[in-house]
Amino acid sequence: MAPHEVSAFAALHRADAPLLLPNAWDHASAVALAAQGFPAIGTTSLGVAAVAGLRDGSAATRDASLSLALALSDGPFLLSVDAEDGFSDDPAEVAQVARELAAVGVVGINLEDGRADGILAPAELHAAKIAAVKAAVPGLFVNARTDTHWLGDGTGGPNGGPNGGPNGGGDGGGDGGGHGGGLETVRRLDLYQQAGADGVFVPGLNAPGRIAALVKAVDVPLNILYSPSGPTVATLADLGVRRVSLGSFLYRRALGAALEAAALIRAGLPVEGPAPTYGDVQALV
Amino acid sequence: MAPHEVSAFAALHRADAPLLLPNAWDHASAVALAAQGFPAIGTTSLGVAAVAGLRDGSAATRDASLSLALALSDGPFLLSVDAEDGFSDDPAEVAQVARELAAVGVVGINLEDGRADGILAPAELHAAKIAAVKAAVPGLFVNARTDTHWLGDGTGGPNGGPNGGPNGGGDGGGDGGGHGGGLETVRRLDLYQQAGADGVFVPGLNAPGRIAALVKAVDVPLNILYSPSGPTVATLADLGVRRVSLGSFLYRRALGAALEAAALIRAGLPVEGPAPTYGDVQALV
Repeated sequence: MAPHEVSAFAALHRADAPLLLPNAWDHASAVALAAQGFPAIGTTSLGVAAVAGLRDGSAATRDASLSLALALSDGPFLLSVDAEDGFSDDPAEVAQVARELAAVGVVGINLEDGRADGILAPAELHAAKIAAVKAAVPGLFVNARTDTHWLGDGTGGPNGGPNGGPNGGGDGGGDGGGHGGGLETVRRLDLYQQAGADGVFVPGLNAPGRIAALVKAVDVPLNILYSPSGPTVATLADLGVRRVSLGSFLYRRALGAALEAAALIRAGLPVEGPAPTYGDVQALV
Repeated sequence: MAPHEVSAFAALHRADAPLLLPNAWDHASAVALAAQGFPAIGTTSLGVAAVAGLRDGSAATRDASLSLALALSDGPFLLSVDAEDGFSDDPAEVAQVARELAAVGVVGINLEDGRADGILAPAELHAAKIAAVKAAVPGLFVNARTDTHWLGDGTGGPNGGPNGGPNGGGDGGGDGGGHGGGLETVRRLDLYQQAGADGVFVPGLNAPGRIAALVKAVDVPLNILYSPSGPTVATLADLGVRRVSLGSFLYRRALGAALEAAALIRAGLPVEGPAPTYGDVQALV
């Protein structure tokens, strides 16, 4: 993939409107979303893991993520991969993952500091991973994610531990609720920017005032995770957010719709909502 | 897998109510459907192919189908695999596919006589595949599918050819519409039963009167493909249908719901409908 395409992805974070990045979980979902006019597609590690019957956040999806990236490498869209925590605690190994992804045309990578055990990785370790990736593949857009809002501040506070995570967050969780001002979030994002992060990502942060404050506190584009109960994309744009990603939501909605349809059919009730035709799906390949 | 489990799947075709068989496309969808109380889960070759970025009906999904079956082999449900045309025109190779599937616990297999080029395979060849599978794995439930209603009667009639297939069917298509009485359908199903088929399947057949007639014309359980515009499961049960499968519909509905959600979010509109939580999805593994 030529360097100008990498730049194209970075440029999408500095356009008039924020980058709305839908996250795919398999080949068809990525191609179908791109066909709707989204210029860039992310992946969701939860979805990629679930498709393969693996646990999210446990580094098990390394191969599945690389395979998906390879399968999508000839698609007419930009691809950014959710690489969990880099699938390793060795920065050199994380850099190798980044090299392999970039080699098949991936233009961006997400690296998160949350761990499957619900404890935040040391910020310095995460920064070292980011630095290793940027040294290995300077053109790869590194979106540095901190899970302070999902997991707490790493000190075992009320929102930390295995019961935190993507379901436990929201604005009452994380260091924002418990510690005031989001100091740990800002401290981590500072470190990650110094390590070379091209963008920063705080999933679970939904409160408009806090988002606006964080936009001012960082020097790179801020990514917020869309939440059905949170601000709209337009509101996030007004707050200064430069990237809105959908995380696992589309995958979960897809699965929810299928389960609902099966239940309705069993009950003899009609199924509402769109479904592409057989030919539509075949045309995605 | 013990022989009694194979018998359990056959028995589901002879219970009070017909077997409602939802078709999964990946690990999570299979496990989640089973968790809704469906005792048996099928697969959809279209979905399995789309997940992997392959064409349906072109034998490309052999490995993906086997991998999925392996990944699901320890699930607390019965699994029947859509094996397209057996992924080969050599009956011995089709029997080998069946052996491999049975080895990982699969209790049923679908074998179709439609080809990716829109032409029906010779009925005698398809019967030879069925016979080879039954000789190799007698306990495997073989559901013999004829695509006469999707592809015409194989003579290049108005519904045949590459423009036929799952979108072109319905009761006006196939040998039913063009030739009256469904003679080619009955001829093929007779051959397949003589070859050892445990059940027969005519996707695209929706007209109640013709379904009832076909129930009388065959000696094994008749499988009908659910259609959103066709009869309900209860009506199909009254007609004597013993198995109602959902084919690619759940997969297509899932993809449709995800695409709809992405479009709604882009437009700043709320997304309706259920979505499992992050924790729900992780719990499927």
